[in-house]
Amino acid sequence: MSNFGILQLRVVNVYNVAFREARSAVAAAPLLQSAEEFQSLSEAVADCNFVVGTTAARDREVQVPLVPLADAALEIRARATTGRVAIVFGSEKHGLSNEDMSHCHTLMRIPTRDEHSSMNLGQAVAISLYEVVREAGSLPTPNVEASATSGDLERMTSLLEEALVQSGYVKPGAEDSTKEKVRRLIYRTGVTHDDAQLWLGMLRQILWKLRNH
Amino acid sequence: MSNFGILQLRVVNVYNVAFREARSAVAAAPLLQSAEEFQSLSEAVADCNFVVGTTAARDREVQVPLVPLADAALEIRARATTGRVAIVFGSEKHGLSNEDMSHCHTLMRIPTRDEHSSMNLGQAVAISLYEVVREAGSLPTPNVEASATSGDLERMTSLLEEALVQSGYVKPGAEDSTKEKVRRLIYRTGVTHDDAQLWLGMLRQILWKLRNH
Repeated sequence: MSNFGILQLRVVNVYNVAFREARSAVAAAPLLQSAEEFQSLSEAVADCNFVVGTTAARDREVQVPLVPLADAALEIRARATTGRVAIVFGSEKHGLSNEDMSHCHTLMRIPTRDEHSSMNLGQAVAISLYEVVREAGSLPTPNVEASATSGDLERMTSLLEEALVQSGYVKPGAEDSTKEKVRRLIYRTGVTHDDAQLWLGMLRQILWKLRNH
Repeated sequence: MSNFGILQLRVVNVYNVAFREARSAVAAAPLLQSAEEFQSLSEAVADCNFVVGTTAARDREVQVPLVPLADAALEIRARATTGRVAIVFGSEKHGLSNEDMSHCHTLMRIPTRDEHSSMNLGQAVAISLYEVVREAGSLPTPNVEASATSGDLERMTSLLEEALVQSGYVKPGAEDSTKEKVRRLIYRTGVTHDDAQLWLGMLRQILWKLRNH
């Protein structure tokens, strides 16, 4: 919850011993301390405008509309602009009861493979909240690095080819076809401008050594 | 992992007592039992064509390309059609080291609020795999071996580093940082399987010449 900035926790009919001894993750202590306790789900969601239950069950088994998480997340974000939204999770062991589900406007489920649909509670919460803030969170654009110029690529080609000649990799008479082969290799290699300088420096040094020994 | 149909677990340098006593979730026992153990990350990813590290760090703190999870998931799905992809998670306490990251083609991070970016490991894994299969429902089965394996990239790294040492490009005492630098260079270079064999042949010959003169 704290990772995704969803900071209001309400617990229903909690097992007090376990809850008091619960240790929060780093940076999540305030969230746990300010958790509100209720005796029933009905009271816990009383001031909410939209209530979404969570289940691992399939459509036919429940009597409330059931949508995949990604669709529910869209509606949750829309509803959250105009009212208070609750996402309800059942206990690790039993999930939500039919009675619990009857308090929900809609149900959502995390798509899993058929053979293994029941999830760890903490992981189900994490995935659900990740999806809820997924679109809104400002994602940094990956910076595209400038690619090497053809001039640099050609210099790389020449240096590498010369190193191959000096080292005996290229058989006498095969210099021309080798240069083309090397050039194609260099060109299809994804080299950025900065990396090209790195390669050029390395190749120059290797070639210097090959020549002077 | 089992929820999302990603069934191959590899563990590196595992704390055996804890790992043997680990209890799997319902339905995940086969996955845990078939987990493979490795002594180093390098060995664990040796047969992989694309390696994605995970981090809570920001762009400026790492030296490998860093993209948001949703973007990385797109590339992971694409790469999984042509080869074997590894997603690498560090330990709960320390995450991935710089040396670990140098084995990765790219890094991804789960967008969180700035005040709380470090995540529970199990939740981070769950969210990552949810996102990876989010659109498709499941990962495609690889059919073509197009890109180089990490094993080949590691061999390229070693040969090039050795050539740089032999040629005097690397100053004495700087061997360790150079190896990481070279590994990052090799990993961010787009090398196909066939080109990797070409590079390996060339580097071997150059190195042979450097050593024997």
